[in-house]
Amino acid sequence: MTQCPAARIGDTLDDIDTPALVVDLDALESNIEHMAAFTAANGIRLRPHAKTHKCSAVARLQIAAGAVGICCQKVSEAEAMANAGITDILVSNEVVGSRKLERLAALSKRVTVAVCADNAENVDAIDAAAAEYDTTLTVLVEVDVGGGRCGVRPGEEARDLALHIAAAPNLRFGGIQAYHGPAQHVRDHAERGQKIAAATEALRASLDLLTAEGLECDIIGGAGTGSYVFETSSGLWNELQVGSYVFMDHDYALNFGETGGPVDTFRHSLTIRTTVMSAPTPTMVATDAGLKAYTTDCGLPALVNLPEGKVFKAADEHTMISFETPEARPAMGAVLSLIPGHCDPTVNLHDWIVGVRNGRVECLWPVDARGAVF
Amino acid sequence: MTQCPAARIGDTLDDIDTPALVVDLDALESNIEHMAAFTAANGIRLRPHAKTHKCSAVARLQIAAGAVGICCQKVSEAEAMANAGITDILVSNEVVGSRKLERLAALSKRVTVAVCADNAENVDAIDAAAAEYDTTLTVLVEVDVGGGRCGVRPGEEARDLALHIAAAPNLRFGGIQAYHGPAQHVRDHAERGQKIAAATEALRASLDLLTAEGLECDIIGGAGTGSYVFETSSGLWNELQVGSYVFMDHDYALNFGETGGPVDTFRHSLTIRTTVMSAPTPTMVATDAGLKAYTTDCGLPALVNLPEGKVFKAADEHTMISFETPEARPAMGAVLSLIPGHCDPTVNLHDWIVGVRNGRVECLWPVDARGAVF
Repeated sequence: MTQCPAARIGDTLDDIDTPALVVDLDALESNIEHMAAFTAANGIRLRPHAKTHKCSAVARLQIAAGAVGICCQKVSEAEAMANAGITDILVSNEVVGSRKLERLAALSKRVTVAVCADNAENVDAIDAAAAEYDTTLTVLVEVDVGGGRCGVRPGEEARDLALHIAAAPNLRFGGIQAYHGPAQHVRDHAERGQKIAAATEALRASLDLLTAEGLECDIIGGAGTGSYVFETSSGLWNELQVGSYVFMDHDYALNFGETGGPVDTFRHSLTIRTTVMSAPTPTMVATDAGLKAYTTDCGLPALVNLPEGKVFKAADEHTMISFETPEARPAMGAVLSLIPGHCDPTVNLHDWIVGVRNGRVECLWPVDARGAVF
Repeated sequence: MTQCPAARIGDTLDDIDTPALVVDLDALESNIEHMAAFTAANGIRLRPHAKTHKCSAVARLQIAAGAVGICCQKVSEAEAMANAGITDILVSNEVVGSRKLERLAALSKRVTVAVCADNAENVDAIDAAAAEYDTTLTVLVEVDVGGGRCGVRPGEEARDLALHIAAAPNLRFGGIQAYHGPAQHVRDHAERGQKIAAATEALRASLDLLTAEGLECDIIGGAGTGSYVFETSSGLWNELQVGSYVFMDHDYALNFGETGGPVDTFRHSLTIRTTVMSAPTPTMVATDAGLKAYTTDCGLPALVNLPEGKVFKAADEHTMISFETPEARPAMGAVLSLIPGHCDPTVNLHDWIVGVRNGRVECLWPVDARGAVF
């Protein structure tokens, strides 16, 4: 079910078949270098999230720039990255079910791997899988610092689960996972800061109880592209798990930009190239990319360099775009570029990333972990 | 980038790894048989749309039940179906660009294929590709009968493009494509009928002009799961291109049901199985399927057989579900089933369909055309 690439290395932009997932390599490298420089300057480790790109080639660039490893959300995603040569992976998510835990235990015999937990019975199941595979698994306690998704409550619940992990014969307590998802998409920079200030207090309360028990945290992880400056300045987190900064989607572009904020710092490197396949009215076109080429869970995609055009509908295989005047409407066969509303699930639709620079296709990268939902 | 199947043939439901795309074979066969019986009883041809399932195994069941062939939306989708043995394919969409047209021309030398057009220059490009590949391509005129997407205007524009096709040396005029997309999702049965009544008049006006020119239509195609009873009763359409009826998604379930309407006629055969991976509060769970296992462009998925539960958020890898009481909340590790809001883009996320009957995995079907966006 893997499709052929949309282009060949050396092709001009016009040679790229559409719809295609295209990455501007200069913009991508600039984003990777900026985040690496920020973390180096602030003395905090960088462990970018591979759930965004699902691509080992991008992960290797991030590690070459100084990242200590990567995060994954699924065991199958971690397996795909390990198969491609990535050797240090944190599964920043709970893993439930004996089949998945056995695969995680087997993976731990090949690469450095850690996993999160928020439930004592699940910790016991992880311990049993580690015993069966004669390995030791590193487990972090996920604490709900305000995100309202997974995680134990800060404080005593976090301490008690950490002690439960530390007492398990085949497990190693690895630290705390403290990620605040909703804060990433708060539009106002200062408001995002307030959310992370509250998360910081919740994390501090938990860390104090761990210290009282003599439990040390190798990893205190969290943060996203929308909030990483705040976790960094708190002085509590020691690893940033930012993902979207490599591509930047339209939703992040709607976050207000201030110095250190994502919008004025990172460039849009990811676009969907799409061809005008119908011009049914003088001020409307249909293009050949739709809901199978990008997702709309964070809104419709944005048009690149066409201020007079407005995407008004996404159908399964069509994007409908209106223009203020007939003069502004592109011709049949014209190729447009769209910035997806949400990069992570959009990348997961494609088998290949087409890397371009100076108007030429420079590389074709497999999306190694596309569809890795297990 | 193709993932392993989530199960093995003979597995029990509990053996299926999650998240998994699961089809109830009894419900699927019932849906296929009902639509086949309806079209046979009404003397209208059935050409189901493969954009919904992208699966040659489902297409073969539809053809075995009496369908004359299938529809596809993309050349690459048609190639995948032809590679799997489907021999009569209508690309019910415009195809723009020499690379795609050359592949369409090559495909026409292997199987019976037709394509739609709504632009004279595009017709000339199709003719040129047919000439280069020493073949004859069948081209239908797409008419906008109210959908507001692609298509020429009814009447003279439709006639003129049909004459242009008929005059092209390497093309054969194949008929009219008259599909009304928005009508499918109008909630009220009678209102859907009014939309198709207007579409019927637009189609009739076009057909009258074609008749006056002596142009015969082999295919007069259109209709969807929400409206097919109306196109059929009009007496004008001769092929139904219904797709969603095989699976039925939650959005179609919101259409009011009357006799002959989709809801009371077809069963939900497609679900996403997902495991409870976190229970952060007494009345909330997180499961292991998210935006990479289903799409939300038609709303959040619906829970099967859990009236007390409510899906309230879909994240990239999590579904958040709330329950009225702690007693109603499933335990860690429990497996739930979700009915996707929109089946077409959801199926496109998965490499395999797990077919189940009587509590066992009976078959594993590759989603042959997953990711076929070219």
